[in-house]
Amino acid sequence: MDIKTLIERFEKIERAAVQSERAVQIISWDWRAMTPKAAAPGRAETIGAVSDVNFAILTSGENRKTLDALAQPEHLAQLPPTLAARVRELKKQSDRKAAIPPALFSEFTVLQARSEAAWEQAKRQNDWPSFAPHLQNMFDYTNRFIDLWGYEGSRYNALLGFNEEGMTAEKLDALFTDLRDAIVPLIQAVRRSPVVIDDGFVNQTFPVEQQRVMAHALLDLEGFRGDWGVLAESEHPYTTSFGRQDVRLTTHYYEDMFLPAVFSTLHEGGHGIYEQNIDPALDGTIVGCGLYSGMHESVSRFWENMVGRSLPFWRCNMARFQQWFPRQLGGVTPEQMYAAVNKVGTSLTRIEADELTYNLHIILRYELERDVFEGRVRVRDLPDLWKQKMQDYLGLTPLDDTQGILQDIQWSMAQFGYFPAYALGNLYNAQYTHTMKSQLDFDRLVETGDLGAILQWKRENLYRFGATRSPEQTMLALTGEPLQAKYLIAYLQDKFRALYHIEKEAAQ
Amino acid sequence: MDIKTLIERFEKIERAAVQSERAVQIISWDWRAMTPKAAAPGRAETIGAVSDVNFAILTSGENRKTLDALAQPEHLAQLPPTLAARVRELKKQSDRKAAIPPALFSEFTVLQARSEAAWEQAKRQNDWPSFAPHLQNMFDYTNRFIDLWGYEGSRYNALLGFNEEGMTAEKLDALFTDLRDAIVPLIQAVRRSPVVIDDGFVNQTFPVEQQRVMAHALLDLEGFRGDWGVLAESEHPYTTSFGRQDVRLTTHYYEDMFLPAVFSTLHEGGHGIYEQNIDPALDGTIVGCGLYSGMHESVSRFWENMVGRSLPFWRCNMARFQQWFPRQLGGVTPEQMYAAVNKVGTSLTRIEADELTYNLHIILRYELERDVFEGRVRVRDLPDLWKQKMQDYLGLTPLDDTQGILQDIQWSMAQFGYFPAYALGNLYNAQYTHTMKSQLDFDRLVETGDLGAILQWKRENLYRFGATRSPEQTMLALTGEPLQAKYLIAYLQDKFRALYHIEKEAAQ
Repeated sequence: MDIKTLIERFEKIERAAVQSERAVQIISWDWRAMTPKAAAPGRAETIGAVSDVNFAILTSGENRKTLDALAQPEHLAQLPPTLAARVRELKKQSDRKAAIPPALFSEFTVLQARSEAAWEQAKRQNDWPSFAPHLQNMFDYTNRFIDLWGYEGSRYNALLGFNEEGMTAEKLDALFTDLRDAIVPLIQAVRRSPVVIDDGFVNQTFPVEQQRVMAHALLDLEGFRGDWGVLAESEHPYTTSFGRQDVRLTTHYYEDMFLPAVFSTLHEGGHGIYEQNIDPALDGTIVGCGLYSGMHESVSRFWENMVGRSLPFWRCNMARFQQWFPRQLGGVTPEQMYAAVNKVGTSLTRIEADELTYNLHIILRYELERDVFEGRVRVRDLPDLWKQKMQDYLGLTPLDDTQGILQDIQWSMAQFGYFPAYALGNLYNAQYTHTMKSQLDFDRLVETGDLGAILQWKRENLYRFGATRSPEQTMLALTGEPLQAKYLIAYLQDKFRALYHIEKEAAQ
Repeated sequence: MDIKTLIERFEKIERAAVQSERAVQIISWDWRAMTPKAAAPGRAETIGAVSDVNFAILTSGENRKTLDALAQPEHLAQLPPTLAARVRELKKQSDRKAAIPPALFSEFTVLQARSEAAWEQAKRQNDWPSFAPHLQNMFDYTNRFIDLWGYEGSRYNALLGFNEEGMTAEKLDALFTDLRDAIVPLIQAVRRSPVVIDDGFVNQTFPVEQQRVMAHALLDLEGFRGDWGVLAESEHPYTTSFGRQDVRLTTHYYEDMFLPAVFSTLHEGGHGIYEQNIDPALDGTIVGCGLYSGMHESVSRFWENMVGRSLPFWRCNMARFQQWFPRQLGGVTPEQMYAAVNKVGTSLTRIEADELTYNLHIILRYELERDVFEGRVRVRDLPDLWKQKMQDYLGLTPLDDTQGILQDIQWSMAQFGYFPAYALGNLYNAQYTHTMKSQLDFDRLVETGDLGAILQWKRENLYRFGATRSPEQTMLALTGEPLQAKYLIAYLQDKFRALYHIEKEAAQ
């Protein structure tokens, strides 16, 4: 078959794969944001039926013949780089899915949806036992998949390599060791610090209606285009994209605190901005989305931390927050707010954790899921291990499973091997923001609310490429270096030593 | 193949057909209620991709062999009645779709979605020329389908018979002639009546936020279960069901009048209640939905007209409306309101028409679409013919196409042969409500707000059967007679003669 015919066939397969995957995502979004509770369990069947279609497209013998032929080195070499990236990505997804027998996959998607519904209820009712068999299912099916996919080194690499191209448990252990060796003493120094941060004002009543107004304003401020997206509400905030011009975000409002909504909105908005700024030439292709998974977490955590937890941000925006919440925040200064949003060590839940301890929340999850897959830990022991590790790393003990193992949605969906992405996001973010700060007067731009230049820098250097480059290629192009932990470590040390008046020696 | 195997295969096909159709409906709902404008045209491709899947299920050679075998009279006779109804319905849908070559159908679904998007814009901008080629497409493709389906008598019967089992243009002409012969002189008598109804108070500013509160309360009042559904907003109100426990309604609010929202909410709520009260044993089957199309319109128009446009309804609820709109409706009596909502002859648009002229709005559309299919009228002449018929039948001339031919969504979706259902709905409704009134003290129940017994009567006698019976069987079971125009005629004559003080002789 000539290459022109192969390319035509490829584009047809790609289109069908992208559109059927988009259909699954739309129905899933509707399911979380709109579907009545009573109908939720039954919706799993609809999602399963459309997932089956996507599966069939990616795994049909004829389609795989086309992908295999076009992915031959002599063919790939003739293709323009973007088309070659599309072929590689679709081939990777096809190989991943074709390894799984259709009946097994179909069983799995139905159980996956039930598991997520069970998690939502279990979290609400602090009922780990009702969720445990579902989570066991998710681990069991994933283990069967790992056997079918194959792996080198840790079994966990089979998951990690798919979420983060080129990453292995071995590389991750090295990065996380550097990070932990620096953070643990820093946290200890913070604990010994005489500085007491008063953040009592963040725990008052903040009317949800006003928080909604705030959330939309924060998205505007970030540069998220409201006319190309939707902001809704769900148990666990997340972002999904049905193309550049239809990016759906969810957030969650708590009546008794406003910061979770601030940071989850900035975070999800960051994901959304990435999707909205991808090169239109990539529309409808398999690489027309942000690079998963660590890089996507880096752009969200950029807005959440580098901007949202910075002093210039609060200097710029404190007056607006005071307009939304005059009674609650009337007398609060930007400096008090900055200190409050960076107060270390109070949160049991990852998504409300401060920037410093956050990474240990991730390392905890990484260790637990890796240990289950490596056969050292049983699912039924996870709640206790969770509590024990929280104590060991952070000196905190969850009061119940809702604040412990049930807090995150990811495992309920069998999204294993994903959590490291959040810490990788911090690492990527710190390294390329270091580069960006050498080129832009970042603090002044944030303090004056002039965020256009920052958006422009990120669009030109990162967003627009979508998933055409690997994370490694991206970091080399952006910063001239491979990923290292030293930039995040330096950033955290500078920030928290200053905040807690820690001498350099004391932190060693 | 033995019948047990055939039934197993049938149920698998049915499940796949129902779930893929549900997927299309969910994505379509999201498209209308949630999707950013910029992304709307591209969404057609997603909908097309999933429609293709549904099409493939209904038309695959192997599936059709199963359906054909099970639909043999000797097999059908062995099946329980509900299962036989499911087989007949799926076979009917399969035959309908299998007649269309896949490539042609796929072209059509993409054009259909574009046409709908073009209509939405054209209506907003009063731009018929931009929509005309899309509408021409819809007629052209439907004409090709009619040739493939075949027909007896009028070409239009190919459309009508699918929407309304057992109905023909010939039968419809007879029913509509009876109806028109009675309504036209009644309208003329109304026009000659000295009674002047003051309805100035309905055209004031009614804050949309309050109308939203009102709409939810009206749904509650009807017996629509809010925990099994969603009320959203779209250009043209409609209802879609993803199963008994997830029924989605949309309505539309106008700042300068509140009655459109009252009646469209009651109307869509009526559709929704039908879907919510189908026998749970029919969940997930092809007959687990209300009977299309006239019977579904009858249940919606029951709430809209028999209840919402009755004096007992306003006697019961006027105080609540006054709470929602104290400044606007403070001094209005139930009798004034009843007269205002039944004032004849002011509306150019169907969905805002009074109950009496409404049927002529339908007859106009029926004649136009029938005449296009029978080759007597060209698409480009429709706007002028529309205006001319409005003048002939109602003495009104639309100022622009937005109030004329662009007012309804249906044609933009190639939903031809559907409009008669609205007048059929009135006919069904009048006939079975006549029966119901002989068994229940209807006026007293409505006036006391005690609507449970009415819901119960309709659930037991109509709703729960879903689509297991044909419209003809349904009317015989409900009323003991086939459909006749006399009940609707008597109802309209009684109501409007009283309201306009018309002597019986004067109306002859």
